[in-house]
Amino acid sequence: MSWAQQHKVFVANRGEIALRILDACDRLGIDAVLGVSQADRDSLPARRAGRTVVLGPAHAADSYLSIDATVQAAVSTGCTAVHPGYGFLSESVAFARCCAEHGLIFVGPRLEHLEILGDKLSARRVAEEAGVPVTPGGETCSGEEALALAGRIGYPVLVKAAFGGGGRGMKLVDNPEDLVAAWELAASEAQSTFGDGTVFIERYVRDAKHVEVQILGDQHGHCIHLGERECSVQFRYQKMLEEAPCVALGETARRELHGHAMRLATKLGYVSLGTIEFLYDVQRDAFWFLEVNPRVQVEHPVTESVTGVDLVREQLLVAFGEPLSLRQDEIEFHGHAIELRLVAQDAARGLLPSPGRLERWRTPPLGGVRWDTHLYEGYRFPPYYDALMAKIIAHGADRAGALERLRLALAHLQLKGPGTNLTLLQRLVAAPAVVDATVTTRWLEEALPQLMET
Amino acid sequence: MSWAQQHKVFVANRGEIALRILDACDRLGIDAVLGVSQADRDSLPARRAGRTVVLGPAHAADSYLSIDATVQAAVSTGCTAVHPGYGFLSESVAFARCCAEHGLIFVGPRLEHLEILGDKLSARRVAEEAGVPVTPGGETCSGEEALALAGRIGYPVLVKAAFGGGGRGMKLVDNPEDLVAAWELAASEAQSTFGDGTVFIERYVRDAKHVEVQILGDQHGHCIHLGERECSVQFRYQKMLEEAPCVALGETARRELHGHAMRLATKLGYVSLGTIEFLYDVQRDAFWFLEVNPRVQVEHPVTESVTGVDLVREQLLVAFGEPLSLRQDEIEFHGHAIELRLVAQDAARGLLPSPGRLERWRTPPLGGVRWDTHLYEGYRFPPYYDALMAKIIAHGADRAGALERLRLALAHLQLKGPGTNLTLLQRLVAAPAVVDATVTTRWLEEALPQLMET
Repeated sequence: MSWAQQHKVFVANRGEIALRILDACDRLGIDAVLGVSQADRDSLPARRAGRTVVLGPAHAADSYLSIDATVQAAVSTGCTAVHPGYGFLSESVAFARCCAEHGLIFVGPRLEHLEILGDKLSARRVAEEAGVPVTPGGETCSGEEALALAGRIGYPVLVKAAFGGGGRGMKLVDNPEDLVAAWELAASEAQSTFGDGTVFIERYVRDAKHVEVQILGDQHGHCIHLGERECSVQFRYQKMLEEAPCVALGETARRELHGHAMRLATKLGYVSLGTIEFLYDVQRDAFWFLEVNPRVQVEHPVTESVTGVDLVREQLLVAFGEPLSLRQDEIEFHGHAIELRLVAQDAARGLLPSPGRLERWRTPPLGGVRWDTHLYEGYRFPPYYDALMAKIIAHGADRAGALERLRLALAHLQLKGPGTNLTLLQRLVAAPAVVDATVTTRWLEEALPQLMET
Repeated sequence: MSWAQQHKVFVANRGEIALRILDACDRLGIDAVLGVSQADRDSLPARRAGRTVVLGPAHAADSYLSIDATVQAAVSTGCTAVHPGYGFLSESVAFARCCAEHGLIFVGPRLEHLEILGDKLSARRVAEEAGVPVTPGGETCSGEEALALAGRIGYPVLVKAAFGGGGRGMKLVDNPEDLVAAWELAASEAQSTFGDGTVFIERYVRDAKHVEVQILGDQHGHCIHLGERECSVQFRYQKMLEEAPCVALGETARRELHGHAMRLATKLGYVSLGTIEFLYDVQRDAFWFLEVNPRVQVEHPVTESVTGVDLVREQLLVAFGEPLSLRQDEIEFHGHAIELRLVAQDAARGLLPSPGRLERWRTPPLGGVRWDTHLYEGYRFPPYYDALMAKIIAHGADRAGALERLRLALAHLQLKGPGTNLTLLQRLVAAPAVVDATVTTRWLEEALPQLMET
């Protein structure tokens, strides 16, 4: 029996990733239903989907973050599975549980893994148990306890919310004088933002590269990795350029990294698509576990480009109970891929959000360049959600070839409308540190003012 | 005022080109309506289109070739323009006229140009007037007249139907003994197939490459070219591999070719997208005019890949009266692109049609490879229409890079179902004559048996 007859997928997301999921369903012959907010009724995903259900008002809490509205819409439209994309409900334990209670397949990992990985402290513990190096640090119940621990592990330290993510609830502290105040602020923010005031501290790794390993596991005990990505170009913990492979790694280091990821994935018995994030201390040639993202990642296309594996399709198939169709030794890596995130944030004004109407939007269909975008000419970019306008993914025989294609793609893009980071992206792909691949995670924040000088 | 408010496009085609047009409309924010046959109600274009109208039964004459049904569907759904794609009604003078009579914009050239170019004899005459070399030959009113003319121009000669196309109504004659019979058969076939028995003869050029120039003109007197494509890999006049640029051309020859195309386009005052086809006599370094295709071409993506110009979008915009947004000196060429046509024709059985159900269809999202396809897993490939399953377009920094990507793409494709030319394509991209770019138009027919040996 074909997928088309067995399954119907509810797409619980918006923007480019909603289009990406709809496309994967289309190619598998599976019907899909899209849930949208009132603000997204005219969006391209809404026009593309075979059927669209309005979840609620524009505000995400009333639509894309509403567990009740989403599950009800999926059930009432006869869906058998829900794909949550990234962000919104994709990592919500309560949502995954509610899906299960209503007989819906949650296209993601097992509930227990969402629970373990959503708590950064328990994720650290599992990583340690799996023999994966974690930075010195641990849970702290008071500012004083944090002070004592930091004294042992050395400054600078990071104060982190156990249930934070993507840089939220994170503070960098350089010396003991600032630690107690920072700890108390972090704990109070964590309580109000994430509903849990647990914070922990860990040693801050300077001059580190952000590297992450893509993993994919099925329900039959098999798990593979699809190589690493480097995402060191970040602004306030938001990635802006992602690539595969990480050229700073020698073959020994790369094998070590993949080994760490696979040990953790195996220890968990991980199912579905996931990303294991690490810091790579370039000077010491050492890796440190950061966190696990139990969902499809914004930057998944760079891995698709170098491996030829359709990650969203595989994610759907393993959710339906299919065994992995590829063995580890069948995964090959070809060339180099780089993704840029074009965002509606005005780089000339410190990357402030800049919604508005797209008077002109014409993407060039250059060879070797993939555009993942939900924009169209005349689209009114809404102020309610994240600022991602398009992902521009270029592939080259080598890294220089991929960068050259990105330069071409940006030069040929016709864009008139809200303020964006287009100029910044153009300067990024020409910046010596990017060209030489020497960027570490702090680089962009320090380099931004100079990059944006006219 | 935006396009979205002014226009609504009726897509009068099916398959991958229907998806391509729907996508161009989407990105311009224009609503589109798709006309389908009863056999295509579950097709991917039908699922993608905002609105779908059934034109008639599966048989093309009752649906995709029915002028009345198409125009009526476009008018009744409030469309302002009709995009005919390629094939079907795309070159029909009667259809373009009927559109005009009903106030619909025909997304294509002017009526008079469709008339001139649809008649190969009158196209030859305009080419001659424009100073474009045409092969020796001309109209013949009887077999005897043909015999006399052939005696003057020399054998072998081609007998061609004035209103034929794509190799239909064409006969190759090697010696005088066969000419009269061939002429009479051609005239009778032309009468029954095309409704006009006019035939002409012209000298047959051996060892020629098929080269063609992409042109684009607006309604304000501006016309540009977007470089050439080579399409010498053909089987029974059907192209199977197309590429840009043509590496057999030196810079002088390339300029000469583009000059011929632009003289003809300028002479006509050509509007819309079009392709001017030539034979390139490699030995003599000489070009011969073949015909003009006044529509979007199957192989347009190779030009898009090397220029970054979205040809379908530009075709729509000039149809709406927009001036060209690019000057000739703004057209740049980057790298090399090659397209392969995957068809549901069993190459092991002499490329016989092979419809049926696609048990497995998984395209690898490799970087540098574009898949233009309307297939999905579980799709039942219909027997009523042409056999095109997918266009696989690879781009590389150079020709070897593009070929390497095609090899990867074919190796990673998972396909189970009807017989196809997949094995043939794999052997094509490894064949010395293709790797060395020495192929001429006769090559594939001669090489096919050897290529298909196990």
